[in-house]
Amino acid sequence: MTERADGRAADELRPVTITRNWLDHAEGSVLVEFGRTRVLCAASFTEGVPRWRKGSGQGWVTAEYAMLPRSTNTRSDRESVKGKIGGRTHEISRLIGRSLRAVVDTAQLGENTIVLDCDVLQADGGTRTAAITGAYVALADAISWARGKGIVKASKQPLTGSVSAISVGVVGGVPVLDLPYVEDVAAETDMNVVVTGDGRFVEVQGTAEGAPFDRAELDALLDLALGGTATLAALQAEALAR
Amino acid sequence: MTERADGRAADELRPVTITRNWLDHAEGSVLVEFGRTRVLCAASFTEGVPRWRKGSGQGWVTAEYAMLPRSTNTRSDRESVKGKIGGRTHEISRLIGRSLRAVVDTAQLGENTIVLDCDVLQADGGTRTAAITGAYVALADAISWARGKGIVKASKQPLTGSVSAISVGVVGGVPVLDLPYVEDVAAETDMNVVVTGDGRFVEVQGTAEGAPFDRAELDALLDLALGGTATLAALQAEALAR
Amino acid sequence: MTERADGRAADELRPVTITRNWLDHAEGSVLVEFGRTRVLCAASFTEGVPRWRKGSGQGWVTAEYAMLPRSTNTRSDRESVKGKIGGRTHEISRLIGRSLRAVVDTAQLGENTIVLDCDVLQADGGTRTAAITGAYVALADAISWARGKGIVKASKQPLTGSVSAISVGVVGGVPVLDLPYVEDVAAETDMNVVVTGDGRFVEVQGTAEGAPFDRAELDALLDLALGGTATLAALQAEALAR
Amino acid sequence: MTERADGRAADELRPVTITRNWLDHAEGSVLVEFGRTRVLCAASFTEGVPRWRKGSGQGWVTAEYAMLPRSTNTRSDRESVKGKIGGRTHEISRLIGRSLRAVVDTAQLGENTIVLDCDVLQADGGTRTAAITGAYVALADAISWARGKGIVKASKQPLTGSVSAISVGVVGGVPVLDLPYVEDVAAETDMNVVVTGDGRFVEVQGTAEGAPFDRAELDALLDLALGGTATLAALQAEALAR
Amino acid sequence: MTERADGRAADELRPVTITRNWLDHAEGSVLVEFGRTRVLCAASFTEGVPRWRKGSGQGWVTAEYAMLPRSTNTRSDRESVKGKIGGRTHEISRLIGRSLRAVVDTAQLGENTIVLDCDVLQADGGTRTAAITGAYVALADAISWARGKGIVKASKQPLTGSVSAISVGVVGGVPVLDLPYVEDVAAETDMNVVVTGDGRFVEVQGTAEGAPFDRAELDALLDLALGGTATLAALQAEALAR
Amino acid sequence: MTERADGRAADELRPVTITRNWLDHAEGSVLVEFGRTRVLCAASFTEGVPRWRKGSGQGWVTAEYAMLPRSTNTRSDRESVKGKIGGRTHEISRLIGRSLRAVVDTAQLGENTIVLDCDVLQADGGTRTAAITGAYVALADAISWARGKGIVKASKQPLTGSVSAISVGVVGGVPVLDLPYVEDVAAETDMNVVVTGDGRFVEVQGTAEGAPFDRAELDALLDLALGGTATLAALQAEALAR
Repeated sequence: MTERADGRAADELRPVTITRNWLDHAEGSVLVEFGRTRVLCAASFTEGVPRWRKGSGQGWVTAEYAMLPRSTNTRSDRESVKGKIGGRTHEISRLIGRSLRAVVDTAQLGENTIVLDCDVLQADGGTRTAAITGAYVALADAISWARGKGIVKASKQPLTGSVSAISVGVVGGVPVLDLPYVEDVAAETDMNVVVTGDGRFVEVQGTAEGAPFDRAELDALLDLALGGTATLAALQAEALAR
Repeated sequence: MTERADGRAADELRPVTITRNWLDHAEGSVLVEFGRTRVLCAASFTEGVPRWRKGSGQGWVTAEYAMLPRSTNTRSDRESVKGKIGGRTHEISRLIGRSLRAVVDTAQLGENTIVLDCDVLQADGGTRTAAITGAYVALADAISWARGKGIVKASKQPLTGSVSAISVGVVGGVPVLDLPYVEDVAAETDMNVVVTGDGRFVEVQGTAEGAPFDRAELDALLDLALGGTATLAALQAEALAR
Repeated sequence: MTERADGRAADELRPVTITRNWLDHAEGSVLVEFGRTRVLCAASFTEGVPRWRKGSGQGWVTAEYAMLPRSTNTRSDRESVKGKIGGRTHEISRLIGRSLRAVVDTAQLGENTIVLDCDVLQADGGTRTAAITGAYVALADAISWARGKGIVKASKQPLTGSVSAISVGVVGGVPVLDLPYVEDVAAETDMNVVVTGDGRFVEVQGTAEGAPFDRAELDALLDLALGGTATLAALQAEALAR
Repeated sequence: MTERADGRAADELRPVTITRNWLDHAEGSVLVEFGRTRVLCAASFTEGVPRWRKGSGQGWVTAEYAMLPRSTNTRSDRESVKGKIGGRTHEISRLIGRSLRAVVDTAQLGENTIVLDCDVLQADGGTRTAAITGAYVALADAISWARGKGIVKASKQPLTGSVSAISVGVVGGVPVLDLPYVEDVAAETDMNVVVTGDGRFVEVQGTAEGAPFDRAELDALLDLALGGTATLAALQAEALAR
Repeated sequence: MTERADGRAADELRPVTITRNWLDHAEGSVLVEFGRTRVLCAASFTEGVPRWRKGSGQGWVTAEYAMLPRSTNTRSDRESVKGKIGGRTHEISRLIGRSLRAVVDTAQLGENTIVLDCDVLQADGGTRTAAITGAYVALADAISWARGKGIVKASKQPLTGSVSAISVGVVGGVPVLDLPYVEDVAAETDMNVVVTGDGRFVEVQGTAEGAPFDRAELDALLDLALGGTATLAALQAEALAR
Repeated sequence: MTERADGRAADELRPVTITRNWLDHAEGSVLVEFGRTRVLCAASFTEGVPRWRKGSGQGWVTAEYAMLPRSTNTRSDRESVKGKIGGRTHEISRLIGRSLRAVVDTAQLGENTIVLDCDVLQADGGTRTAAITGAYVALADAISWARGKGIVKASKQPLTGSVSAISVGVVGGVPVLDLPYVEDVAAETDMNVVVTGDGRFVEVQGTAEGAPFDRAELDALLDLALGGTATLAALQAEALAR
């Protein structure tokens, strides 16, 4: 096997840092870094729920993902200036929201809403997986805040577990973990996997960018992903324990 | 196991029909039906490619998915009236495009563009998988048309294989194939799988709607999907042979 | 007089078919065909009325017209993708709504709303007139449905009559009925006429595409239109009697 | 017959004034008044034509209609603020453009474009007919300007005639000419008629607002309209002769 | 010093005219002219306030500024057609609203809203200052109307003073008052100053178009502006006394 | 005088930090902090200029300002989601662009464009002044980069000086420098002043939020602003020297 550009082993994560309370105003906030990828995750807690959920007794958790125009190598136009949100942005926002809701017991949350804003300050591959991983920690902080304030009254913890995410892919015929941009563009197969702290799947999204992949490749990628998310789960727990 | 609402076996497809040449103008067109789900797929061939692809010598295949307002049980507002396309529509359009490109050798296509319009006339679950399955046949017809006219000049067939798609899910604890709407809303896990005619994966998109799923469930769902898409591949070949 | 492209007499309609219940979900639905023009009309019944009509005791009937991107010979961009509805679409939607309201006694309808979605699956001239003609039948079915369910309680039929529409025009100096696309683009004068079952006018919209027209031409066109709509009214009655 | 609110005879126009050169910058400009209805028509001449017309040797004439927010009795929201143009605005803009093109020989215009902006400063019924009537005069001035400057080089006058428009309607069972707002809202039938200076029809747009109308009513309305537009044509000629 | 293009002294206003009641429908309306600049200001009074102000007991005054497409030398596209409002339009609308609110005691107004529409019919520099100056008079008329009708019940006048505005700039090294377009484009420094009837500042907006300006230049410009607005205040009072 | 909330003297700045090269991709990037206000300024250099400037031999510098949704105490909706940019955003983007262009000799820049993206990560008053102050440093770095690469070829430095900005206001009757959010909302008068490194004005934007202000107050505020910007100019020079 040819070495990876940054010298990592195939099953090795980039350096991951999770900095809590990066913002003063938000009820939870995290600056998460996967190598050079840097995402600011802010959790905003508000009492009340969207209209379609009123009277249900259940809370709501949603997410919005966006990239700063110069987070990437070449500047992109702002979606606010273009006047519409692109398909990729929509897709990732929805993925983050679903992933977080998978570990929230909305009945315990009461009729409250938490919005997770995940803004990519710098992009080098894996922005959606970093966003999910960081947003979970911001979400946990916002829930602690609300329980501390007595706004969320349920004695039972609304979080049913933790969740993190990682990208895996086949590059030059070799399955690898946590792809930076240079590997991402070269990957034949690209998969994002969202996994709970106890190792079960929340989302599996695999795409053949080049040749279609067979069952064996799929299995190898899932193995890598489960390894990576186990490490991320430990890092999340450690960050929350600080 | 409790019986399915429509009496099918767990690994049984709904009745599938593929009607070619449903439209007079389009270079390829198919009305595809998966049970009561009915999608009109029109392939529009145009010479030339989008600006960013000019001079590459390569063609382009893309797709747009939409639902008629009353395709569903309750009328939805038109996205043209709302002035913006929703995230779900974006997501599915992108999925169909990627799935078809996985079996197209764009170099053999030359600098030509084929747009696949997949409009859902009636929805009863599985609209995106029916769309992919039908759009492949419309695409094949459009390519034949262009080769017949001599517009696509390459002697080599631009299609490198066939592609179809099916939904699978866990309903009431049981993995089942090809979910209609009533099963779809009840599913704990929902997966759409896109597979080539020779049984390799193009896309795997699994989502835990309720509890996260484990590796064994994932494997059972993939087995079902491979069985279903093998049948669909045969039906596509049969339709194209008529 | 030179013969018409499809061999019809000047005062002859194209073959017209009206297929009821083409959809499973809608309260009324019709696939209407005027030759190769094919329009799907779906009537959606909902209890309640728009805000500005609340408390009036009166119902509301409105329509939305749209063309599928490949209904025409050359693909058009989707209005949902462009983010705005074009003037022609607006104009025709408003025309269909006004035409149907001309035969509805909204007081008998009670505070209920019926939306008629008229989606052109294939276009070969006369899409707006086919839409009005088909939408009337779908509307009649939706009203029957609501009366059968007891949702519309008035003992008096909310429909005060029937309505249909046809295009007429002067082509090569000769007034002709029901223009397909090839005649439409060649017409010097183009007129759409909406007429009730008892032969009175609801809308008369004539436009000089080439030279302005005089009173005699106008009279000849109106004669043709009244003949055509009388036939359409009979076909509508027949379809509803089946 | 009951008297009209403003004491006019059934076949009498409101006081009409046509003030040329109301603006300093525009190549042609007219403030046209039909009673209290007041429309500012500005003709903007630019060399060149839209892309789809390039190389045709033919010019283009188009129009945009809009109402100031407080032109009406109750303030309306600006379409610029709403971010989209309403159906009525679209419809009227298209009508004005078609009406003017009916009297322009675009080949004589050369590849030049004239845009007619018709902004309603005050509305009291008949804004579209006043706009067409005034815009014709502004158009004539802009063409004279361009011929004087030698920008339009053809020796033949690009205007093939004049055009004006008037509304007619049935109010309280009586056909009347040039309806102000109070009559407009009460009319059973409402028709806008666009007529050339030599008395031929360019557009006939009649709508039954209440009961459908019969052939006799239609004929009576057309008679009134031809009388009104003959007077308007004389007023236009007089204004242009000043 | 070189003479000004129109022969005015450096501290001389263009001819200013303020025509009240230019519209029949609006509760207050003014056509204001600063030389060739011509702005139509309409005040629309409505009972009630925006949602965020409900229950406050306080009224609201706001403004919308816009230019007709051919108010300028070269036609501009309509913002309604472009589907969005430009930065300059936004900026000026906000400036007019703030300027007027500076002289309104919203508590005396009660929960009522006055919208000032300032539409530029012809532009020759100074459109925003003319708009503020004219809008004040329209506002005063609308408030008188509402007090006369007893809709505004407070015995105390809601207007705490008058407000007007003027542009000043450095052209060819010389500070001058009330710049027409030709001076505006040539100005090194451009300042808009909004001043109350008793000579205090509401807004000072100075911009170096060419070289930055020093304190002495700033002082000279402020002197000119205070002179100009004193004259405008007198003209406003005179107009309101008529 | 009552003490300021954070204990500063009336003429004292908050702690200011300027961190260069905060991003890896951008040609210049700065994280600037004025107390808790934190703005990320990224300079993107691209060869070529907008169409309207082509062939002029001159470059272009522009800016886009935006706030992250949770930069503020209460979450705001994203402008990309709302589909339009608000007036305040437009206004500030334009202000930043003008301020920077005041110190750029675009002829020396050649036909190149620099876009300054100023994204507010956290807001506590003075975001626009921090943005201008930080953007200048990012701009200087981008120009150095381009000169180093030989893309900007002119031997003369395109920067003609430096520029910084500060807010001043009257709070509780006392003129103060650099207002945080709590002072900003309480200010009677609010002024943003943009000043070059040699102490001349680029922009003066003063607004009476409460009572109008007189000449003496204006003078006191300008004095404060000149003191503050002199300090900022020194901090900018120091940062660039590191």
